Amino acid sequence: MSEQRIIRPTPISGFPEWTPRIRSVELRWLDHIRRGFERYGFSSVETPSVEVLDVLLSKGETSQEIYTLQRLQADADDSSDARLGLHFDLTVPFARYVAQHFNDLVFPFKRYQIQRVWRGERPQEGRFREFTQCDIDVINVDRIPLHFDAELPRIVHEVLTGLDIPAWTLNINNRKVLQGFYEGLGITDPLAVIRAVDKLHKIGADAVREILIDQAGLSSDQAAACLELAEIRGSDTTVVDAVAKLGVSHPTLTAGLDELGEVLDELSDLPSGSVVADLSIARGLDYYTGTVYEATFNDDPGYGSICAGGRYENLAGQFIRRSLPGVGISIGLTRIFAKLVSEGRITGGRFCPTDVLVVLPSDERRSAALAVAAQLRERGFNTEVYHQAAKIGKQIQYAVKKDIPFVWFPPFDDGRPHEVKNLATGEQVEADPASWNG
Amino acid sequence: MSEQRIIRPTPISGFPEWTPRIRSVELRWLDHIRRGFERYGFSSVETPSVEVLDVLLSKGETSQEIYTLQRLQADADDSSDARLGLHFDLTVPFARYVAQHFNDLVFPFKRYQIQRVWRGERPQEGRFREFTQCDIDVINVDRIPLHFDAELPRIVHEVLTGLDIPAWTLNINNRKVLQGFYEGLGITDPLAVIRAVDKLHKIGADAVREILIDQAGLSSDQAAACLELAEIRGSDTTVVDAVAKLGVSHPTLTAGLDELGEVLDELSDLPSGSVVADLSIARGLDYYTGTVYEATFNDDPGYGSICAGGRYENLAGQFIRRSLPGVGISIGLTRIFAKLVSEGRITGGRFCPTDVLVVLPSDERRSAALAVAAQLRERGFNTEVYHQAAKIGKQIQYAVKKDIPFVWFPPFDDGRPHEVKNLATGEQVEADPASWNG
Repeated sequence: MSEQRIIRPTPISGFPEWTPRIRSVELRWLDHIRRGFERYGFSSVETPSVEVLDVLLSKGETSQEIYTLQRLQADADDSSDARLGLHFDLTVPFARYVAQHFNDLVFPFKRYQIQRVWRGERPQEGRFREFTQCDIDVINVDRIPLHFDAELPRIVHEVLTGLDIPAWTLNINNRKVLQGFYEGLGITDPLAVIRAVDKLHKIGADAVREILIDQAGLSSDQAAACLELAEIRGSDTTVVDAVAKLGVSHPTLTAGLDELGEVLDELSDLPSGSVVADLSIARGLDYYTGTVYEATFNDDPGYGSICAGGRYENLAGQFIRRSLPGVGISIGLTRIFAKLVSEGRITGGRFCPTDVLVVLPSDERRSAALAVAAQLRERGFNTEVYHQAAKIGKQIQYAVKKDIPFVWFPPFDDGRPHEVKNLATGEQVEADPASWNG
Repeated sequence: MSEQRIIRPTPISGFPEWTPRIRSVELRWLDHIRRGFERYGFSSVETPSVEVLDVLLSKGETSQEIYTLQRLQADADDSSDARLGLHFDLTVPFARYVAQHFNDLVFPFKRYQIQRVWRGERPQEGRFREFTQCDIDVINVDRIPLHFDAELPRIVHEVLTGLDIPAWTLNINNRKVLQGFYEGLGITDPLAVIRAVDKLHKIGADAVREILIDQAGLSSDQAAACLELAEIRGSDTTVVDAVAKLGVSHPTLTAGLDELGEVLDELSDLPSGSVVADLSIARGLDYYTGTVYEATFNDDPGYGSICAGGRYENLAGQFIRRSLPGVGISIGLTRIFAKLVSEGRITGGRFCPTDVLVVLPSDERRSAALAVAAQLRERGFNTEVYHQAAKIGKQIQYAVKKDIPFVWFPPFDDGRPHEVKNLATGEQVEADPASWNG
């Protein structure tokens, strides 16, 4: 053992890392989510981890803390990499991608993108510096049918339902409802109200009222009406009637209610309570122009959104002189997964993907053991051969420790049959490697 | 269309990005490689993209150019992230991982890791700043059976054989053969010779001879013997006899030849020429101590290694006071893939994963179309519904452009049958969504 200095490795705050059993569950989740996206025909896209800073900052000053890259051994006068930063979401890279590869794409372009993103935030509960997002977006030239505003929540519903996670609700709203309602009230800066209402679940109604009156300049009647609108919730088109009862009218409001009603209508076959219209959902981002989405855990809404998205009129406008409206939604995989791990709700899958451990009877019988393993692999079983001749008990112990369900015994003497032991039941039976079915 | 300034997006040199058809092939490759690794029971591991710099630099000054991270909006006096860098390979993070999670692992620990790595090199042919590596390693406490030195090339052989790539050879050597041979010749600094011989394929025999004599201080007889050894190649144990004929003897040489012979012997069932002992293979890295691997394309060996690896005695020694020998090999996915793309040998798969496009006969029949699509998805077919009522020709054209093989026609009138059109054959037949099989 060398006497060199030991660097005791420790976790890096905000950069999650899983032991193999936990990782095997994460991998199952990733496969499941991808399959859900592909089932609806979405194409896989990956973009580099970096973008030039101009692209990352193209939506104006961003509140996301960007990590920039610097070469450790860069020459003092070398500034060639000075303008690269790690992407902080997958939406900006996707907009850049669509503009850059416009002529190679078929529209409406439906893409999914499952990648890590980075934010130089102060790590705290549910906030990571490196985390995986699972995004789907549909983008089209000039016009994007409202049908997609309903398809995306349906996909998310199917995907999340297949994961073993606590109950959640996908809340839907429409920016036009908010904007039209506020304009119908005579409010001149609806976006300021949207930003204030977006904080409702964090800071409460009284604090929002204060902002609306003191900062956005609303009358107390206007503020009261805005908060009344935000209280409307429901999983069917009765929410449309509830808004109408507030007595505000404006063409944008009418358009928004029509859209919201149509989306709810197309989703009416989903289990009640899974997708709910919630007129308090605003999404702070400026670029949403219609439908907005936000999902939260029912038992911990304060944890914040686990999925979010919406419709935008022209996300790639800063990269290409084409009108490219779209609608997208993002599943915050790491946010969901890490919470369940830390709460002990995910305790892990199998340590390894091995289905069968083939016992090595002796060094002389290694090639026979390897041949059985090859045969089982050929037939679709993930198979290991124990790595050295050792007591059978020790070999079985290895399978137990690694969560391997079956131990295979090739003949220890010529002419004897193969046997296989099911470690869960303890049962051991004769078996033929050419026909055994697990 | 807004009049805002347009940021024309351009590729970032050294950061590959693929259009959807190319990406679909890459995804197939990634799935195939992963399946190959899992078939042999390797556990999935992912580590964060970053390590603290102390860890990245723990093997001493590295020739790999490291990218460090800096927060764009960092306060002048905030140095909390100053010590983070993107990993430049997956070996150092794996060594750190094993040390950090030692008590949660089962040994021998077999892990695969498929992730992006970053190097701040000057981009050139076959050299990227961001690329994907596919690594497998087996690591054990105190002792690692030689059997694994043969298992890894077998896995790589199976995996690469399943990809449609030009002919390649996986070359094997053993550091002990080189070291023992050099010591048997009376050379005092075998590592200097190993580093020189490692350049043989790049700079040629004469240049290596010059280095050996002028810089490593060898006599011309010693240099000649070293170069003679490097010429020995063969896919079976006859290479062992060929070395013996050179008349050098040393216990380390004998041990190395025994190991090399045993590994070749265990691999003797593989197709001739796929795994070859090549005594010129040295691998420059200091930490290899036995078997070394390096695969190259037969028609373009100058492109450099497409897989590489070897056996190491104590890779995690700087992180933990345990002896953890291992053996590993890495497939340079991006190096292989990007070369074939740039040479036009990979022209792309399907634009999207959709198997069936369901035609939308009219807005009134949307829910019937959605129901057929749901039924087909349930049965495992990736299915899209055309997004708006449009001329049938236009809907079929969309399927053609997106490489969707089947177009489904739900009844346009009540009581009529479903029909499905195979776009490859043009054949259109009646079909039942509950039993149709593609």
